[in-house]
Amino acid sequence: MVKQVFGQYIPTRIFFGNGEIKRMATEKLPGRKAMIVISSGTSMRKFGYLDKLTQALDAQKIPYVIYDKILPNPIREHVMEAATICREEGCDFIIGLGGGSSIDSAKSIAIMARNDGDYWDYISGGSGKAKPITKGVLPIIAIPTTAGTGTEADQWTVISNGEEKIGFGTDETFPTISIVDPELMVSVPPHLTAYQGFDALFHSVEGYLANIASPLSQMYSLKSIELIASNLTKAVKDGTDLEARANVALGSMLAGMVEATSCTISQHALEHAMSGLFPKLPHGAGLIIISEAYLSSFLNDVPERYREMAQAMTGKRSDDPEDFIRALVQLQKDCGVYDLKFSDWGATEADFPRIVANARETMTMLFYLDPRPLSNPELINIFEKSFR
Amino acid sequence: MVKQVFGQYIPTRIFFGNGEIKRMATEKLPGRKAMIVISSGTSMRKFGYLDKLTQALDAQKIPYVIYDKILPNPIREHVMEAATICREEGCDFIIGLGGGSSIDSAKSIAIMARNDGDYWDYISGGSGKAKPITKGVLPIIAIPTTAGTGTEADQWTVISNGEEKIGFGTDETFPTISIVDPELMVSVPPHLTAYQGFDALFHSVEGYLANIASPLSQMYSLKSIELIASNLTKAVKDGTDLEARANVALGSMLAGMVEATSCTISQHALEHAMSGLFPKLPHGAGLIIISEAYLSSFLNDVPERYREMAQAMTGKRSDDPEDFIRALVQLQKDCGVYDLKFSDWGATEADFPRIVANARETMTMLFYLDPRPLSNPELINIFEKSFR
Repeated sequence: MVKQVFGQYIPTRIFFGNGEIKRMATEKLPGRKAMIVISSGTSMRKFGYLDKLTQALDAQKIPYVIYDKILPNPIREHVMEAATICREEGCDFIIGLGGGSSIDSAKSIAIMARNDGDYWDYISGGSGKAKPITKGVLPIIAIPTTAGTGTEADQWTVISNGEEKIGFGTDETFPTISIVDPELMVSVPPHLTAYQGFDALFHSVEGYLANIASPLSQMYSLKSIELIASNLTKAVKDGTDLEARANVALGSMLAGMVEATSCTISQHALEHAMSGLFPKLPHGAGLIIISEAYLSSFLNDVPERYREMAQAMTGKRSDDPEDFIRALVQLQKDCGVYDLKFSDWGATEADFPRIVANARETMTMLFYLDPRPLSNPELINIFEKSFR
Repeated sequence: MVKQVFGQYIPTRIFFGNGEIKRMATEKLPGRKAMIVISSGTSMRKFGYLDKLTQALDAQKIPYVIYDKILPNPIREHVMEAATICREEGCDFIIGLGGGSSIDSAKSIAIMARNDGDYWDYISGGSGKAKPITKGVLPIIAIPTTAGTGTEADQWTVISNGEEKIGFGTDETFPTISIVDPELMVSVPPHLTAYQGFDALFHSVEGYLANIASPLSQMYSLKSIELIASNLTKAVKDGTDLEARANVALGSMLAGMVEATSCTISQHALEHAMSGLFPKLPHGAGLIIISEAYLSSFLNDVPERYREMAQAMTGKRSDDPEDFIRALVQLQKDCGVYDLKFSDWGATEADFPRIVANARETMTMLFYLDPRPLSNPELINIFEKSFR
């Protein structure tokens, strides 16, 4: 039974298409001085993406400050440091250019540039103090260079404090403008293309299974699943295939719209605990590792939804919910990510109980959205089945 | 070929579901004194919808003024009169409660309550002066009691000056809040349920055929077509069937999202000219009258799109674009509206040339969005084929 009372609020102005980053040179921007947030890696400079952005800002005579320390699993310290710089420099809007880590950091910096105290004061879940945000949030512009998080089309930001990795968001953390330009994604290497693409796929899959799924979120989910399933392998095998890149990017953006209208379920809570404890584990890889066992958990609870997702993945009529699991495994094999080993990132079987405990503590809410409640022994069993 | 550079901006906060009008008692409203805009008919009072709204406003201690003169084909004079009252009374937001005529009027009143001169000064097309709106637009709340226009999810407002009936809208005329409550739609009589449902269907169909259709608009179109095709007959035959009402209402809202991301094509321009010249002709009836002939015009131009729409209408695989026309005619027969006669509203064959001329003059843009340009003889021929 899909929810019959539901809503939607996605106020972001979205531009999608090859070369659309040029809009930054002409579009009315929501401030007079920008802070540009990018990762500590080299890609944004090496591939010229930062130049494209700064040239566009120059054309509008908009000055900017660059904060370039964001880690793949972004941390509270950087949010706080950048927010301080933002106040000192008088920046009045924040541009996140890069993967989800840079854009999520931009969202969190936009909160802390206006509000006092520590970022964790405002977080709900874990040791967060859940204080209300009373002083507004600076306008945010999201320019993703990966196709995975969907953060360009939702309000969520995921930041770690070293022990807890928690998703957070409000109506004010939707980007004001998002520019999804597939040409900025051709440089992502194959394995990261796969990890990120599966992250997007799971946003749509989990949002489809969630007990708060709505007819709108399910529409976004099915289109997203269809686009990713039929294009991800091509994008992994040939990163310069712009049509495949665009379709995966659109699938990922739609998955963000799923996040804005439904929600991920406990698979995402479990993975946040995994990559919270093993920060070098890419989020998408963590999801892939547990996905076959995890997603097999609800086959008997909502078989119709699995059949519908199988149809979206394969384009063929399905009468067997397990068709979805088979299609998922096949896609992982085709993308070369079926054999990922959690142990390669340092995990042992002894870690399972604390991962489960951490997931329940920090992202409690997501467990309430599962199609049926999963017990701790079931959750441990998912890790046992998934462990290599 | 669907557009690969596209965008989306739908900032409206949408609430959907039976009883959701109660949100007006608790949701943060965008002003301190409301103008409620309703039609000159009796329905809003007789069925208690106005009471539900005013009780909710009372609960929030929000005072209001009621403007209750809106005609089925809403006119500029009422927009101007209500805007004057709005200024005099100090209303700072406008609530449209009713069909598209009331909500569209609310949007146009919201413009004229802040901007000087005449409404037609701001209109693009026809004799409109296309002045920019420089003083902002009051916040708008849309509460539809019909399922047809989709105006709750788009920026458009269609108003007539007696001779021209022109669609107009800006980013600021999206409703701030829209509440789609199917329980407010059970009182719509069968023939109007059918007219309005077909209007919604054509928003989605025309938006699907438009040369500016995008992957997002097409997703909204197909879901909308599916929902309307499989539920409209039920809603027409039993107006109290709340599930059918809800599905048609959702289909209509999605068609509004099509309007916000793609656009109608020249069928809507032609109908605006028809009901502009014959104001008693309901907009949906006018569309139905010309639809079979009109929509047969592009079968050879975009056959794939017709097959996809046929599949959405029937739930069955289609290899023949004409399946769509057959399904459309069948739905019109099932809903009892296949035999509408333009002559019943006073039209004669002598009117065709001036209808075509008026359509081209007042809504010129829509002709540029057709899958291929239609000549005047072709347009006249559509009316000849459709005439009874």
